[in-house]
Amino acid sequence: MPVFQQVYEGLRERIASGVFENGGRLPPTRALAVELGVSRSTIVTAYEQLVAEGYVEGRQGSGYSVCHMGEVEFAAKQEVPAKQISAPRRSRPKPFSPGVPDMRHFPYRQWARCVARVARNEPEALVIPDDLFGDLRLRQAICEHIFQWRGVRATAEQVLITAGSGDALEICIRALAEPGDRIGLEDPGYPQIRHFVSSLGMKPLWLEVGADGAELPPASGGKKPCLVVLTPTQQYPLGGAMTPGRRLEFLSWAERANGWLIEDDYDSEFRYAGRPIPALASFDRNERTIYTGSFSKIFSNNLRLGYLVIPDALTQRFAETLRRFGGKASVLPQRALATFFEDGEFYRHLRRVRRVYAERRRALIDLLKSELGAGAKIEDPQAGMQFVLCLPDRCDDAALSRAAGAIGLSVSALSTYYAGSNPRKGLVLGFCGFTPEELRDGILALAPLIRKTLA
Amino acid sequence: MPVFQQVYEGLRERIASGVFENGGRLPPTRALAVELGVSRSTIVTAYEQLVAEGYVEGRQGSGYSVCHMGEVEFAAKQEVPAKQISAPRRSRPKPFSPGVPDMRHFPYRQWARCVARVARNEPEALVIPDDLFGDLRLRQAICEHIFQWRGVRATAEQVLITAGSGDALEICIRALAEPGDRIGLEDPGYPQIRHFVSSLGMKPLWLEVGADGAELPPASGGKKPCLVVLTPTQQYPLGGAMTPGRRLEFLSWAERANGWLIEDDYDSEFRYAGRPIPALASFDRNERTIYTGSFSKIFSNNLRLGYLVIPDALTQRFAETLRRFGGKASVLPQRALATFFEDGEFYRHLRRVRRVYAERRRALIDLLKSELGAGAKIEDPQAGMQFVLCLPDRCDDAALSRAAGAIGLSVSALSTYYAGSNPRKGLVLGFCGFTPEELRDGILALAPLIRKTLA
Repeated sequence: MPVFQQVYEGLRERIASGVFENGGRLPPTRALAVELGVSRSTIVTAYEQLVAEGYVEGRQGSGYSVCHMGEVEFAAKQEVPAKQISAPRRSRPKPFSPGVPDMRHFPYRQWARCVARVARNEPEALVIPDDLFGDLRLRQAICEHIFQWRGVRATAEQVLITAGSGDALEICIRALAEPGDRIGLEDPGYPQIRHFVSSLGMKPLWLEVGADGAELPPASGGKKPCLVVLTPTQQYPLGGAMTPGRRLEFLSWAERANGWLIEDDYDSEFRYAGRPIPALASFDRNERTIYTGSFSKIFSNNLRLGYLVIPDALTQRFAETLRRFGGKASVLPQRALATFFEDGEFYRHLRRVRRVYAERRRALIDLLKSELGAGAKIEDPQAGMQFVLCLPDRCDDAALSRAAGAIGLSVSALSTYYAGSNPRKGLVLGFCGFTPEELRDGILALAPLIRKTLA
Repeated sequence: MPVFQQVYEGLRERIASGVFENGGRLPPTRALAVELGVSRSTIVTAYEQLVAEGYVEGRQGSGYSVCHMGEVEFAAKQEVPAKQISAPRRSRPKPFSPGVPDMRHFPYRQWARCVARVARNEPEALVIPDDLFGDLRLRQAICEHIFQWRGVRATAEQVLITAGSGDALEICIRALAEPGDRIGLEDPGYPQIRHFVSSLGMKPLWLEVGADGAELPPASGGKKPCLVVLTPTQQYPLGGAMTPGRRLEFLSWAERANGWLIEDDYDSEFRYAGRPIPALASFDRNERTIYTGSFSKIFSNNLRLGYLVIPDALTQRFAETLRRFGGKASVLPQRALATFFEDGEFYRHLRRVRRVYAERRRALIDLLKSELGAGAKIEDPQAGMQFVLCLPDRCDDAALSRAAGAIGLSVSALSTYYAGSNPRKGLVLGFCGFTPEELRDGILALAPLIRKTLA
């Protein structure tokens, strides 16, 4: 141990144990150097270390004194519990888990480069957002993205960065509805949004989903919803887009009923054929639609980043909600993601995984057809991250899902996405997170169970 | 424009406009080179660029073909809305804002270095957490921190990383209470927690705060609370610690009533004299306390990082809540913060700002005494980030707060932290975010208003 460090540790110990009074002077450097028989610069180095670490203050011309701050950090220093870091429990998602991107294709190197570049060049941007709604450069990049991909026109001021899509929905509901209100929800639909609605003391009004998309709320009778959550581009989990006619009906309902539409555009970037279906918000001339998107599907669920695009008339109300409940989106990933967009890495990644996922979708469809023959009734929207394998009404899809779970597969029963009493039956099969080989092994294990159910 | 790029752009345009069919072959490189009168390597370069960007696939020996992915990204490419990035609206907090750290003292360089190091050495750790509860190394660092500073013994498995303290409280309430339940809340108390409780459909049961700390919930009559949120180390906003006797009473209440205590230990790291007061959780032999801490005060509010320490018996229940509602904490800052701890930067920063804040606290007290004389009745807990300047009951502290707001000061009226009908009067004055000079200017402006109110 270097001499200065021995001096430093001896002094720190004495400060901790109260030998030196708080505010008391340390011995002059020259005197202590003589006393210990070391050079004066050794003492100065030790004192300066104590200054840097905050134990001691140095005032020009008046020597060093012990800081007024008690002994807080010394408590029980020797009894630290042993390190208990277990092996990380990261596990691969089980085959057919829906909505799961394949993190083996994540552009770690490119993303880390963006993060490191922001850390180097703009360290303040890691810590301080531009304003309550988040980093402006990211919000600008989102404006361009949703304009080019979804036809939605908005300014950066209308974009609010959230901690993922769950946070986005929760902020919307808190800003636009009160406990006791009714919220229109698609049936079948996304389970998490149901939990939010009931946890926030509101009541769902179920909107059945037909061939044109979700039904409109009833014109009379019962309590009317103040807002409706829709997945118009790709119904979740059935797939398929709401028809233009139905979209216009919803927009005019919102205008008439003074209600709001929340467009949950959760994975519209994954479209494997033809042109993208424009967002509902791009049709809306009356600013009744709040658009929400997420980076969970394209990028990574764990960055917890999503966004809301808010009509101008509502930005103040959303700011109030954020102030009241506190924002939850971390500022750290925001500028890095803006850079990732600006460098073109985002689209490069998106095109790459879309090609990979398109192959996997094709592979899964082929596997189902070859294993199940005519039993393979697939709702194929040529988009998204999962599709439904339809089963006859007499089948117990929940039992099938449990049996699949028992052999290590994550296959969701379509009926569990329904609130109503007459659910359709089927299996929701995710294909993005798994290679064609993994999908084949999964189907070879799953197909006998399905055949038994169909028999 | 280089020749290869002209070729590349021409081809991309043709792919976009559908001249080449999806899946169709591109012309062989040699033939196209001859046709265009350029070198074959120019064509290969252009094709490879298209491959890299995901428009085209190259298969060994069988040439290049257009990818199956539609024309999604081409929509309206020329009509991008003009950039609208406004000047960032970052603004300094107004003098006397409570609970605000001074970001001018933030160790940007050291923090950026930790972020960049993780990006370089462990890029996966930026994107994938160890498990549902977060990064294990950060959780281990938190265990050591709360053991040394707060006397709380826990394993990393009991630590759950949250998106700040608001998220932590919300997760607790969702895990431990149901809509309609009563939640014991201190009166006065933290406004945000009140919003959460009512937004989640629960009813507050107000616990008055006396000299020993919060009163216990009444033993009989009315609905009993299933959980109680306390600030035992430093009552918010009054300051002052709950007495050991009252702590033991709460612990035995929890045991008897089968209730839970949430210990909100929001700024206990800032103690300016003597030893730290141990956390309530460190007294708890029966595992009825959920401890919550945050990095907002020490570090930065905008990283959105906090944590819960959960009794072993409840970890499954909290995991279930996280799965049900989705986690909100970003993984990106977690490993970097673990590194920041491991390097000792965290404590170096903490000691540094504690010294700075101690000086500011002293400066503000001195200013108030010299400007107000006997009128300066200060509740001084020698800790925290703000204190209360007490005013006589006859004073209208809310009017005083508004008058201060009109001259650019952020002074909270003590009465607004109360739910009950007989609030104490005073001003909550934050001192951490402002230099002694800024505090002096603020007090010189504020003192005349206070003197008028006292007169």
